[in-house]
Amino acid sequence: MKLLVLTPSLKDRHREAIIEKAGSYDVEVCFAASEDEIPSDFSEPDIIYGFGVKTAQNCRTLKWMCVPWAGVDSLMKPGVFANDECVLTNSSGAYGVSIAEHIIAVTLMMMRHLTTYHEEILKGNWGWERYHQDSIKDSRITVLGTGDIGCTFATRARSFEPAGIVGVSRSGVCERFDFDKMLKTDDLDSVLPDTDLLVMSLPGTDETVNILNRERIMSMSQGAYIVNVGRGSAIDDDALCDALESGHLGGASLDVFKTEPLPEESRLWKTKNLLITPHVAGNLTLDHTLNKNVDMFLEDMDNFFNDRPLKNKVDRSRGY
Amino acid sequence: MKLLVLTPSLKDRHREAIIEKAGSYDVEVCFAASEDEIPSDFSEPDIIYGFGVKTAQNCRTLKWMCVPWAGVDSLMKPGVFANDECVLTNSSGAYGVSIAEHIIAVTLMMMRHLTTYHEEILKGNWGWERYHQDSIKDSRITVLGTGDIGCTFATRARSFEPAGIVGVSRSGVCERFDFDKMLKTDDLDSVLPDTDLLVMSLPGTDETVNILNRERIMSMSQGAYIVNVGRGSAIDDDALCDALESGHLGGASLDVFKTEPLPEESRLWKTKNLLITPHVAGNLTLDHTLNKNVDMFLEDMDNFFNDRPLKNKVDRSRGY
Repeated sequence: MKLLVLTPSLKDRHREAIIEKAGSYDVEVCFAASEDEIPSDFSEPDIIYGFGVKTAQNCRTLKWMCVPWAGVDSLMKPGVFANDECVLTNSSGAYGVSIAEHIIAVTLMMMRHLTTYHEEILKGNWGWERYHQDSIKDSRITVLGTGDIGCTFATRARSFEPAGIVGVSRSGVCERFDFDKMLKTDDLDSVLPDTDLLVMSLPGTDETVNILNRERIMSMSQGAYIVNVGRGSAIDDDALCDALESGHLGGASLDVFKTEPLPEESRLWKTKNLLITPHVAGNLTLDHTLNKNVDMFLEDMDNFFNDRPLKNKVDRSRGY
Repeated sequence: MKLLVLTPSLKDRHREAIIEKAGSYDVEVCFAASEDEIPSDFSEPDIIYGFGVKTAQNCRTLKWMCVPWAGVDSLMKPGVFANDECVLTNSSGAYGVSIAEHIIAVTLMMMRHLTTYHEEILKGNWGWERYHQDSIKDSRITVLGTGDIGCTFATRARSFEPAGIVGVSRSGVCERFDFDKMLKTDDLDSVLPDTDLLVMSLPGTDETVNILNRERIMSMSQGAYIVNVGRGSAIDDDALCDALESGHLGGASLDVFKTEPLPEESRLWKTKNLLITPHVAGNLTLDHTLNKNVDMFLEDMDNFFNDRPLKNKVDRSRGY
């Protein structure tokens, strides 16, 4: 069997671990920097770990593809895999730590006006104006999407002594974190008026498109904050901009967008109290994320060759 | 007796609570927006709560002064109080929540390059470059100064799963937070080479001046981060700038400076990987801070009129 690795940023220790594990199953390994640099004898691999979507589309021998990212909405369309039977695993679970730290950071940056102070300092101004601050302490937090990211965030957020943390998920059940209350997505409306901070970490599925629509945005508590690290499709951008411009919302931080990079003509660029980051909440430049990503792949390699269920297998009926 | 209140940002509920408590001890209350607006019949109060340093310097009737801030180094000099017997209390303990949130925020902003991304977005650039990130997870944290701020920070930091949190204080003892290890300030040198994040929350005293000198900065772990929220006098600024420019340190965040506002000619303005904030980590614009500040004063008013020791009394021999 042949394994093609197309994951960037790997360190020597990761390559060695992959070679060793693959060797124990008589699997040949090839590391390529990108799909344009795949040696011809590896153009038809049995396994891909990495950014190999073009290859997967043409490769009938492919039995298992592990993508090193979490959101696989773009891979759910027909025709993405030449082999319909190809198993897909993702790396949901590797990014929780990184994205949770991002959520805490941008939340506090908004609540404490840290970008405003930084902009003044960049101009050489001391900028010692005192703005009203908000705090995670005593805030009512709602986490929409209680997977790895939502739970890892909630664990950290709880240490800041919020008034409460409500989780919202499709099933209304979360076994990993002890939310003060769990709701089904169908009951989202009931909690928004009592939410000071809404954290959105949803996968991109038919059910999550436009889930934060205009009516729901307007139902939120005056001065509330929104952080979206899931998918840009989940929010009505125009309604969000209106609510920020009018002062109904205290702030919003978006790391994900319907189109990335954000188009030049987007209204989001110039909306006040909107903190934009260029999809950097989770990426492979954090050692912990990279280590966990590789560990998860290697664990599933054991499962794959021992005919056990793959732990990180994507459920195509759910889309995540 | 007469109580003069010179604390800004008070809400009606705070004024009412002060009037009620003072009334129960037959104390007359006057609220003034600043020392320039004190009515003449209150120019010789018995108690001051607030920014009343000029008044205290000339007021022989003053028996108790409660300042709504924490660092009282500037009040330790002779001649600050016309009445040598005047009791001084401060509001150390009111700022822990606010300053802990500041420390977490600036630490993550540095580790995750969030100011760089923000600067690019301000220019209209997507700026999708991937920088190496660091994380609080698995970091070795040292907290220099384990009072309210240091402990409140450590409580939050622990939820991010650091490798460990070492506390350093004059006594080498901390009853409030269970640090992985406690050291005396005399043993600071032993921990700096194993520190990825140094949080400094020290009062300004003779013993803390220049405590982070050039030798100690250079002994720190390559790529380490420093956050100072105590007093600017604690750091050798030139050595800090050198260590940031050379890349020895990963970043530093300063909220306090030897001179504030930071003088135009200061080298700090233009030092790379240095995040400057204009002394905003703790201020009275956060509801929680203001509520706690007033509560602490009212608790000590009960102590004052019942001849009990004042809880927030400054120990002049220590200077905090």
